[in-house]
Amino acid sequence: MNRALAGKKIVIIGLGLIGGSVARALKKMDLGCKVYAVGRNTKILEQALGDGNILGWSADVKDFCTDADLIVLGMPVLSIEHNLQALAPVLAPHTVVTDVASVKGAVVEAAQRVFGTVPVNFVPGHPIAGSEQSGYTASKPDLYHGRKVILTPLAHTNAEAVELVAQLWKAVGAEVLMMSVEHHDEVLAATSHLPHLLAFALVDTLSHQGTREEIFRYAAGGFRDFTRIASSDPQMWRDIFVTNADATIGILDEYMQDLQRVRELLVTRDADELFNTFKRAKASRDVFLSFSKHQNPKHPE
Amino acid sequence: MNRALAGKKIVIIGLGLIGGSVARALKKMDLGCKVYAVGRNTKILEQALGDGNILGWSADVKDFCTDADLIVLGMPVLSIEHNLQALAPVLAPHTVVTDVASVKGAVVEAAQRVFGTVPVNFVPGHPIAGSEQSGYTASKPDLYHGRKVILTPLAHTNAEAVELVAQLWKAVGAEVLMMSVEHHDEVLAATSHLPHLLAFALVDTLSHQGTREEIFRYAAGGFRDFTRIASSDPQMWRDIFVTNADATIGILDEYMQDLQRVRELLVTRDADELFNTFKRAKASRDVFLSFSKHQNPKHPE
Repeated sequence: MNRALAGKKIVIIGLGLIGGSVARALKKMDLGCKVYAVGRNTKILEQALGDGNILGWSADVKDFCTDADLIVLGMPVLSIEHNLQALAPVLAPHTVVTDVASVKGAVVEAAQRVFGTVPVNFVPGHPIAGSEQSGYTASKPDLYHGRKVILTPLAHTNAEAVELVAQLWKAVGAEVLMMSVEHHDEVLAATSHLPHLLAFALVDTLSHQGTREEIFRYAAGGFRDFTRIASSDPQMWRDIFVTNADATIGILDEYMQDLQRVRELLVTRDADELFNTFKRAKASRDVFLSFSKHQNPKHPE
Repeated sequence: MNRALAGKKIVIIGLGLIGGSVARALKKMDLGCKVYAVGRNTKILEQALGDGNILGWSADVKDFCTDADLIVLGMPVLSIEHNLQALAPVLAPHTVVTDVASVKGAVVEAAQRVFGTVPVNFVPGHPIAGSEQSGYTASKPDLYHGRKVILTPLAHTNAEAVELVAQLWKAVGAEVLMMSVEHHDEVLAATSHLPHLLAFALVDTLSHQGTREEIFRYAAGGFRDFTRIASSDPQMWRDIFVTNADATIGILDEYMQDLQRVRELLVTRDADELFNTFKRAKASRDVFLSFSKHQNPKHPE
């Protein structure tokens, strides 16, 4: 048993894919912690209660959060500020708060606006796990198995608070890594935010074609994989792009320069340089797969 | 049993992923046809013979092709012309020839150059099936199950030749559709060639980042799916882009305009219009999935 979590009262605000998967994993691991949920979707919360994944739920943060050991904010980036505002009057000094949003700079700024300075027990975090599906019904207990969770504590963040949040993620099967807020947002702009933008844009471009239905009719598995992330939650991704716009624009501009270069190779039918580009890309992806296999042996390619 | 193929002598030139999967499927279906292979890779051909997927092999087209009923050209686009040149002196008038290349305009032009006019028994074809893996070792008997094969016969193509090729693809589990050469190359530029170009370019862009290893280290499943096609065979894709450059540039330019529009939404932090774009893309992809599920129930999402 993970002693760090035994007996702890954990409140998940926002029981979607991420929060719901935490609740399911904690229940399955049987760590002896008491998990509650706060949210607005009565039907989902009743379902989670019926599933035995939470001990109780409320629409009001005051009901469980006042004496919580750990609060997990499970909502998209732009919804964090008003949840922190609701929490501020009832938050006990010892209560550790973490979040799961995909952009960390905006979350830190929201905490600064609400509290004046970011509380020492607030630990910004981001599980690199997800799916193009969303909501509690898509959540699953093994979502975090073999996945990475990045925590981005500030210089003054309480080390014990960081440790408690790290224990939570380790308990549900993840590997925990530390990174600065700024670095996190740049790395994720490249590896996650840009690919999502490209996939959304591609499906949008093709859907403007007069022969949309026909085009989709002849698309194959490669297209399905390539555009899978374009089925992701529009609200969550709106929030990510609005709050991580600068880092995304930076890597998008580099990408568009690369596309212009490749376009020129098409115009000139430069077979050799096209071959070199594809060969280099294939080799680079093999490097990525070697990391990926190592870190996530349950999902071999 | 499929009577159309019983007793037929079929020669596959180029026993890679596509040709190898045809051989494996025909063997598995036990249709009573005699399958031979022509190629250069002795080790692979011996392996296929040992596997029982072919009855014999040769490095010289003259050995089997002179009295073949059906010849399947299993090589990339730019390798077709010299194979047709080798075939031309030995090809019997009744022998039907088809190919599997991803671009049809260039194949028709190659046939015109070699034969003066495209032979009435030459049926250009393209199975919309594949994988980021390539070669005979990646081939499998069920590659074509539930997949589409597009045939692009010309006005003067022999109807019986088209029927024999269609029977071959139906026998291995595919659905056969007809399309004009030009339309095929435009539709495939949008649904297959552009996505591959974008994935190759993205991996290439990220691999130029100073922190390449770190960036790949934090990439998750969405990135793996998005870039899967960047692991495809560089030679095959070089051939595709060189021969379908114009159609690819056309759809690439539309895409880059769309990217510029989305970039402007990032610059102005236009949350509403970003949301609308993502919502529209998600809805369009759901349309695609509804086709995809229908046509390919073995690969549900």
